[in-house]
Amino acid sequence: MGLTVAVDLRGGDLGPQPLIEGIKRFLAETEDVEVIAYGLQSDAPLATGVHRLFFRGCEEEITTHDKPTQAVKGKKNSTLVCGIEAVKSKEAYGIVSPGNTGAVLTAAYLLLGRIKGVKRPLLMAPMPTLSGEPFVFGDLGANADVRADFFPGFAILGRVYYELLFGKENPSVYLLNIGEEEEKGRQLVKEARELLDAYPWFKGYVEPHAVWEGGYDVVVTDGFSGNVFLKTAEGVSHAVTGVLKEEIMRGGIMSKIGALMLKNAFKEMKKRFDYKTYGGAPFLGVRGLVMKMHGRSDADAAYSAVKALYRLAKGDIVGRIEERIESGGVRSG
Amino acid sequence: MGLTVAVDLRGGDLGPQPLIEGIKRFLAETEDVEVIAYGLQSDAPLATGVHRLFFRGCEEEITTHDKPTQAVKGKKNSTLVCGIEAVKSKEAYGIVSPGNTGAVLTAAYLLLGRIKGVKRPLLMAPMPTLSGEPFVFGDLGANADVRADFFPGFAILGRVYYELLFGKENPSVYLLNIGEEEEKGRQLVKEARELLDAYPWFKGYVEPHAVWEGGYDVVVTDGFSGNVFLKTAEGVSHAVTGVLKEEIMRGGIMSKIGALMLKNAFKEMKKRFDYKTYGGAPFLGVRGLVMKMHGRSDADAAYSAVKALYRLAKGDIVGRIEERIESGGVRSG
Repeated sequence: MGLTVAVDLRGGDLGPQPLIEGIKRFLAETEDVEVIAYGLQSDAPLATGVHRLFFRGCEEEITTHDKPTQAVKGKKNSTLVCGIEAVKSKEAYGIVSPGNTGAVLTAAYLLLGRIKGVKRPLLMAPMPTLSGEPFVFGDLGANADVRADFFPGFAILGRVYYELLFGKENPSVYLLNIGEEEEKGRQLVKEARELLDAYPWFKGYVEPHAVWEGGYDVVVTDGFSGNVFLKTAEGVSHAVTGVLKEEIMRGGIMSKIGALMLKNAFKEMKKRFDYKTYGGAPFLGVRGLVMKMHGRSDADAAYSAVKALYRLAKGDIVGRIEERIESGGVRSG
Repeated sequence: MGLTVAVDLRGGDLGPQPLIEGIKRFLAETEDVEVIAYGLQSDAPLATGVHRLFFRGCEEEITTHDKPTQAVKGKKNSTLVCGIEAVKSKEAYGIVSPGNTGAVLTAAYLLLGRIKGVKRPLLMAPMPTLSGEPFVFGDLGANADVRADFFPGFAILGRVYYELLFGKENPSVYLLNIGEEEEKGRQLVKEARELLDAYPWFKGYVEPHAVWEGGYDVVVTDGFSGNVFLKTAEGVSHAVTGVLKEEIMRGGIMSKIGALMLKNAFKEMKKRFDYKTYGGAPFLGVRGLVMKMHGRSDADAAYSAVKALYRLAKGDIVGRIEERIESGGVRSG
């Protein structure tokens, strides 16, 4: 048998049903993998009778209202903690969860620990662009306070992630900044740049409006700015389409007919800018593969997330990161 | 005679012509104001024969390639420096410039100085929302490195600006953060919150996706995060509409007819999210009114910027800020 990966069925806004749907769709098209689903006992009927899907019933779930550290330490029999224990014991290569982001990161950090040589694990995800070539971006929020010496590690982790996700070698790395000239930006960014300048794959600063054009492979920043970037992008794409809808409704019958004719274009646009298309965000740098999928994940999003989990597991992302860190971040072959 | 305000005709990407157009349009609808335009000698013909528009010819211009401090100190006869000198000597109440942002801020800071009691001036601008009620947001990038004790000043300046811009009293203030719970965010944000909690108008954290819904009056953050927020918003709104256009072109004849029928809706949406509708961004906290308009400002943008300049001048924003700082940030009347 090939690979085993795990899915946490609990903690998402839509409950376990759409996640099971996504897993089924994934299993139907992928042969060499088994999935273990961690749910509450009552979820068992959802997961029965599916080939290569195994169900584990747990006693409790961690909710969005739980305080991360308290929840991880207190709820030992939660779906999340049991699932991450399975990654620790190598029963599963990795896990994806739709739950409380703080709890997912805390459980991964506390139960699995850091990969030797990694100063701080970070949360990364792929982002769509106008050119159609996505970039990977992080830290999305795991480290709100950072030091400059975290950045080479962020960059090295991002490069391995990019290679496995897109199958492309030797990606370039950029540092997010509020100007392109060397003297621009805050002190932290200038210090990080000095350290990154030692690597041949580091290409300098990029600004937050330029990345969407495409052509940047890996973009790193601190977890505060990264989360501002992510949430601003979500808010603005929602607002722009919302205002457009409002104006269409206000525009009378011609406008509504026009909107019908554009239905496909809207759908394609939504798809290209939708997190559902891109799957989950891995917490890179811990000793095991742990991914977060969106809290509002439906079957499409769950399908993409399990597929991304599988791809990274198949490429042995944890082993690749260990190798790369040992070799000092420069590719050996 | 009423008010005099100044416009720097140079430093913008489109040259002086559209700025003159915008000024003319503004003067045609506003009686109690005179405008002084600072241009190169060769711009004189553009500005002749317009009632209440006075032209001053200068010898040089500061470009986007100039280093701010060097340019401000070295180009004493530039349109920007001459214009800000006119604000200093009270010949004009305030000035708006499309030029090099760094140079505009540096010139304002060096030539005018800070208002007593203001720790750091900041750059603010209004932002559109889904509800239609804009919020004012800053720092947009004047202070990349900040301390927590700058924040009460940022908030007080933002409140005066909001009141004059929208004619509404007692605006609420929010601090941008990557979570709403008290324990979320970076150290700086937590420290800033402790200081802001002393003011009755401070309402807590807001996240970067939530602000676009509306209902927040003044939102403050550090200049690095603020610039990331601004540039991400610009990049994403551009990318979303860009992808939609691409999908329309790809969609065949029905799709193109649909797009024609939606032309008005697109136009209205663009208008609502366009910086051109909202005019310039004032550098608040210096002893004079200095505004930056977009480098790509066309006649519409220039018109809005001069109108905003006039409104803030008419409300004596500098005097109001001085009063408010003296009273400790709490409104007297």
